[in-house]
Amino acid sequence: MIAIEWLCDRLKIIDQSRLPHEEVYLELSGYQDIARAIRDMNIRGAPAIGVAAGYGTALGANAIKTTDMNQFQKELSEVIETLVSTRPTAVNLFRVAERMKKVAAFGKDVEEIKKALTDEAVKIHFEEEKATEKISHLGAELLNDGFGVLTHCNTGPLATAGHGTALGVIIYAHRQGKKLRVFVTETRPRCQGAKLTAWELKQAGVPFTLITDSMAGYFMKRGEIDCVIVGADRIAANGYTANKIGTYTLAVLANAHGIPFYVAAPTTTIDFSLISGYQIPIEERSPEEVTHIQGMRIAPEGTQAANPAFDITPSQYITAIITEKGIIKHPLGEGIGRVA
Amino acid sequence: MIAIEWLCDRLKIIDQSRLPHEEVYLELSGYQDIARAIRDMNIRGAPAIGVAAGYGTALGANAIKTTDMNQFQKELSEVIETLVSTRPTAVNLFRVAERMKKVAAFGKDVEEIKKALTDEAVKIHFEEEKATEKISHLGAELLNDGFGVLTHCNTGPLATAGHGTALGVIIYAHRQGKKLRVFVTETRPRCQGAKLTAWELKQAGVPFTLITDSMAGYFMKRGEIDCVIVGADRIAANGYTANKIGTYTLAVLANAHGIPFYVAAPTTTIDFSLISGYQIPIEERSPEEVTHIQGMRIAPEGTQAANPAFDITPSQYITAIITEKGIIKHPLGEGIGRVA
Repeated sequence: MIAIEWLCDRLKIIDQSRLPHEEVYLELSGYQDIARAIRDMNIRGAPAIGVAAGYGTALGANAIKTTDMNQFQKELSEVIETLVSTRPTAVNLFRVAERMKKVAAFGKDVEEIKKALTDEAVKIHFEEEKATEKISHLGAELLNDGFGVLTHCNTGPLATAGHGTALGVIIYAHRQGKKLRVFVTETRPRCQGAKLTAWELKQAGVPFTLITDSMAGYFMKRGEIDCVIVGADRIAANGYTANKIGTYTLAVLANAHGIPFYVAAPTTTIDFSLISGYQIPIEERSPEEVTHIQGMRIAPEGTQAANPAFDITPSQYITAIITEKGIIKHPLGEGIGRVA
Repeated sequence: MIAIEWLCDRLKIIDQSRLPHEEVYLELSGYQDIARAIRDMNIRGAPAIGVAAGYGTALGANAIKTTDMNQFQKELSEVIETLVSTRPTAVNLFRVAERMKKVAAFGKDVEEIKKALTDEAVKIHFEEEKATEKISHLGAELLNDGFGVLTHCNTGPLATAGHGTALGVIIYAHRQGKKLRVFVTETRPRCQGAKLTAWELKQAGVPFTLITDSMAGYFMKRGEIDCVIVGADRIAANGYTANKIGTYTLAVLANAHGIPFYVAAPTTTIDFSLISGYQIPIEERSPEEVTHIQGMRIAPEGTQAANPAFDITPSQYITAIITEKGIIKHPLGEGIGRVA
């Protein structure tokens, strides 16, 4: 399975919204198609949408007809703006946009910029792949043979266009021969745990137990969980971490049970410009994701539902952040400063 | 809507497994039908299944053909055994069985016992109705105008064959004119919150917001929750409470945020014979409830899932237990001793 494949004039992605029931690939040749795929969550996961936005910028740039530099820059800004406005929480989109803008600012003509943007997109993808590989290896050191490991949402190859972050750690530890008892939360409302993490662990041959989000406390209390490991959508300079809704609840539970709580994320997920995690914008998604499951109505007609897609976990609940530049321990703010 | 209606030769119940999509009533005339309805969760909720088991015993007894006392007692034992073995966690079933056995022990002939068993079943129902009414009134004192109240699972008229416990409190406070912001957890895996509590609150005209179980911590952290109120399936003599899976997680969260956590339950839910809550047997239900939602597969084929239906909340996380005999405060064990 390849989550994202660059085919020079188009981007091939696996449609995550149809997994695990169907393995359908989409070929996207316009930047609008990529923007739509990010918004509709055919592709998701903070590092993966960053990579997709990079390729989207390249495709958008290559489709611009003019050779006039001013006109080109104007149209390119629209491309980038469209891609960046798809989802608000993951910082990866914004970082990629900054990189692409910087590249675009230094070309001597349109053709050179187009080529440089494509090179940069490929480089971003390559770097994320390398970073997630490093994270997998570093993080696996924290998992002992026999550990019960709880993870939330989906943070594998699908989410990262690489080796995975939290799930990459688990898969790599398994490949090292460690016997783990992996607990996967289903991760309502979109069930990325039940659908995507379960699918990826099955592909990787890692045994696991699926649980509802509400069961985490039960298994912690029984002593079955030795650590929690999750990914991140944006990490502020103080270590406060935005991640899939439910992460904060797991962190409070882990803290109450004396269980280490790890965040695994490439440094591209860190937003050094935000002093506090509470400045991170939280995406509010459609209430239908809560009143319905897989398009089927659960709650009665007229039910009002809230659907914040992410929450913020304060740094005091985070034991360490596993990045490709090393494992950041407390005080997290200082450690983050060192990888800036 | 009437959750349970006694029609002398049969029991009429609303089929909770088809709510909120269809309002279908079932008429059950044999005790095996009632046992099946409890096991398959057409009827559920600790007080409601106690009431149903009472009527089931009466119907089972009335169908026994013999007039020989020994033979009658033997067949009655089978009836009671069948009803009691349907679900293991709620103590109400066992208490009802004890009451029925006691009644059966004191009749002078079969006809008299049959009549006494029917009278006892009606009495159990009446007592639960009265107890839940009292709980609603007492508990409503704890809810101030403007409160944000979080509840879990379903504890309304459907679950209690009366006024409801935790949900009865919320509905009664609403009728008192208090403006509440009610948060309802969907309560995976069976979604009793999304399906039944949402339906009952809609019927009662109480505005509410449906959230996934994973969102509770988020809304607590934002200061939107002033108290949590849940029901119970069994309360041990030390106050430790078995309730729907996810209750313990909510209690830990409430504790971490300094939010009062109330259990509302009739004293019939208290198991005075258990010194510790960890002695309460936890029902493990089919993994398909987790891998599927409303019969539709979510997780990939071959996914292993855990499905403990209940968890235990230690008394230190419980601010008070609201019973029909008064509000039990700390130390809970002593208070429970007083209502024994």
